[in-house]
Amino acid sequence: MVPHLTTALTGPLLDMERLILGATPQIERWFRNQWQEHAAPFYTSVDLRNSGFKLAPVDTNLFPGGFNNLNPDFIPLAVQAAMSAVEKICPDAQRLLLIPENHTRNLFYLQNVAQLASILQQTGMEVRLGSLIPELTGPLKVDLPDGASLLLEPVVRHGNRIGVAGFNPCAILLNNDLSGGIPALLQNIEQSLLPPLHAGWHVRRKSRHFAAYNQVATEFAALIGLDPWFINPYFSTCGRVNFQERQGEECLEKNAAIVLEKIRKKYAEYRIDAEPFVIAKADAGTYGMGIMTVKDPSEVRELNRKQRNKMAVGKEGQQISEVIIQEGVHTFESINDAVAEPVVYMVDHFVVGGFYRVHTGRGPDENLNAPGMHFVPLAFATPCCTPNRSANPDSTPNRFYTYGVVARLAMLAASIELEQTDPDNQ
Amino acid sequence: MVPHLTTALTGPLLDMERLILGATPQIERWFRNQWQEHAAPFYTSVDLRNSGFKLAPVDTNLFPGGFNNLNPDFIPLAVQAAMSAVEKICPDAQRLLLIPENHTRNLFYLQNVAQLASILQQTGMEVRLGSLIPELTGPLKVDLPDGASLLLEPVVRHGNRIGVAGFNPCAILLNNDLSGGIPALLQNIEQSLLPPLHAGWHVRRKSRHFAAYNQVATEFAALIGLDPWFINPYFSTCGRVNFQERQGEECLEKNAAIVLEKIRKKYAEYRIDAEPFVIAKADAGTYGMGIMTVKDPSEVRELNRKQRNKMAVGKEGQQISEVIIQEGVHTFESINDAVAEPVVYMVDHFVVGGFYRVHTGRGPDENLNAPGMHFVPLAFATPCCTPNRSANPDSTPNRFYTYGVVARLAMLAASIELEQTDPDNQ
Repeated sequence: MVPHLTTALTGPLLDMERLILGATPQIERWFRNQWQEHAAPFYTSVDLRNSGFKLAPVDTNLFPGGFNNLNPDFIPLAVQAAMSAVEKICPDAQRLLLIPENHTRNLFYLQNVAQLASILQQTGMEVRLGSLIPELTGPLKVDLPDGASLLLEPVVRHGNRIGVAGFNPCAILLNNDLSGGIPALLQNIEQSLLPPLHAGWHVRRKSRHFAAYNQVATEFAALIGLDPWFINPYFSTCGRVNFQERQGEECLEKNAAIVLEKIRKKYAEYRIDAEPFVIAKADAGTYGMGIMTVKDPSEVRELNRKQRNKMAVGKEGQQISEVIIQEGVHTFESINDAVAEPVVYMVDHFVVGGFYRVHTGRGPDENLNAPGMHFVPLAFATPCCTPNRSANPDSTPNRFYTYGVVARLAMLAASIELEQTDPDNQ
Repeated sequence: MVPHLTTALTGPLLDMERLILGATPQIERWFRNQWQEHAAPFYTSVDLRNSGFKLAPVDTNLFPGGFNNLNPDFIPLAVQAAMSAVEKICPDAQRLLLIPENHTRNLFYLQNVAQLASILQQTGMEVRLGSLIPELTGPLKVDLPDGASLLLEPVVRHGNRIGVAGFNPCAILLNNDLSGGIPALLQNIEQSLLPPLHAGWHVRRKSRHFAAYNQVATEFAALIGLDPWFINPYFSTCGRVNFQERQGEECLEKNAAIVLEKIRKKYAEYRIDAEPFVIAKADAGTYGMGIMTVKDPSEVRELNRKQRNKMAVGKEGQQISEVIIQEGVHTFESINDAVAEPVVYMVDHFVVGGFYRVHTGRGPDENLNAPGMHFVPLAFATPCCTPNRSANPDSTPNRFYTYGVVARLAMLAASIELEQTDPDNQ
């Protein structure tokens, strides 16, 4: 069962898929050369939007959850890719500490942790789960819906090494995006930390990511002879916003107007009959909090108190003051009348699968990644590494291959972004 | 459907599987370190024998056929591994020439070529098939049973580069084992040749391979605390044999007696109630030609003319003068009363799957790899990279993991063997 595009505007996308499929040898060589120059993150997930006329990443997660939503048939791909990552980053490691988010009741998330631990164990690692939950004083066993269980153990620190009781790991894998800043426990650790601390949302900015993506997308589009707009959403930022005190509204309104006008021009150029919109969201952070859809710039002035409060606070109560205004890409994939948004998963620089967030209660221009899993996952039917040049460009394996290509462009942007923010490069 | 061991002697093997499963972290780290020192061949297949008390490689193929027999579900693993291989060996390559064996009627083999070409195409390469068949003057389209077809084109040479008409490849992948020596067309080529020419059977000797394997198996067995005999077959060689003129029979008889006596001692040590046997086969060559089973040393003297003629000639009519006498490992896996022999496939240093040769007409001490596919392939039910330490050591994923470990040891031996025979190292 594969979602289908409900828009009649499949012309430009089909052209792009044909272009990408035809240029596969050049594209793969180009990626090979990029990975000789840039180190891929340990793992990455990328949210895509497919409007039928445009296919673009809208969020790149360096601490991906949702591994439990992948097709079980492709888990060996993730194992093999994780073997590659371990080889490159910590070949000597035998023991790995996985540090998840501080959730003990979000079973969707904890099933992700279980799947991730299982993938890492299958690479031959001994894996234990170290929790940063402050009130955790001893091991906590959490039962999962599938009958398995997880053991969360408090992280302990000895000098500049961390571990859990009786377990001294060679490497630490973070599945915790550090939205609340770097806990003292993790500061100045001598072990390898994957991804590095500066991949946390206390440092990351979406605008820096999309600036790097802009560079990557432009180079890639030139390689295959494509207008980069087809894979690259416009964006702009406002640095000093306070929703509750209604500061920075002019900046938001002005920038929303600029981005909307740019989109309108492109729609006219390609005769696209759709209503432009932008998404205003926190420049730092994740989890689909503090996000709004804007079709008319005046909307940012007309927020009521409740909407302003909702926009003001991100994950873990972080105050939102930097805002990115990004071109909205319609979601025109659907299944059984429900909107379906693809998320592509990568380990090392390999695409290892993905899934759709399927949501019945929302429109094509809204955000589906809300807290607490208000969506149904639908695993990709084929992996993203099996293009078939003798089939139609929009056949299932080829559509997923295109998704994998665009997701890898976003991952490459994240690699460049991490180089730019690496304290060792400053 | 998974073959089961029909022997009651599962004690030692179960112990070994338990040992290997328990030592997974050390084993995988050890392999990671080995691959930092040794370069894996582009691709490898390893024939294993599982006697229930012993699990050993008996043949390591550097030009593997049979990719068509792998489980289609795991082909993405092969694609991903091939991407790794290309990255390491020829990152700049976009066009690849695949040179198959000179078969035009063996559809089993040609389906392997089609699968291999498809895997390589999915890595993003442009792939064409260059044939060395001397009488081929133009492209030859061969229809395959699944409705697909292959285009075999004559290899053409311009200066020190080869290709096919209108196609100038950056790299050449050989799926032709060069049993007949290196054709002039392939000599002093400036393009990358994978595997290198000295991986051909005109240079390779099984005895050199198993000497390297002896070294690898000893180190590995010490790592996990195992008697290396459980994974390592005894062998010996006779260098000057002429079956037709009955020269070298004394050497064969003497060495068969020595190897049989060593096996008998091990059987006594581990209280194994089975009849020892050795396999005498050509030291150079493949395809299960020139092979005999010996239970009593006198048998090599009592060959009739027909048997001598059969032993005297290998693939492509090569005269056999060097013979390896190798400890026979009983085949005690069976399915529906048919003998089943596992073959493990690797691309780069990753195990990507395998299949069983299932044969109803032969006994557990005979060779199943005969020309023209006198066996039924049964793809492995799970890949070999998904050990499950919470399941039984002999559960399906764990048995296949153990197969993958032993096959990788043989691949590592092949890597060392190729270093030893590399003309650039002489």
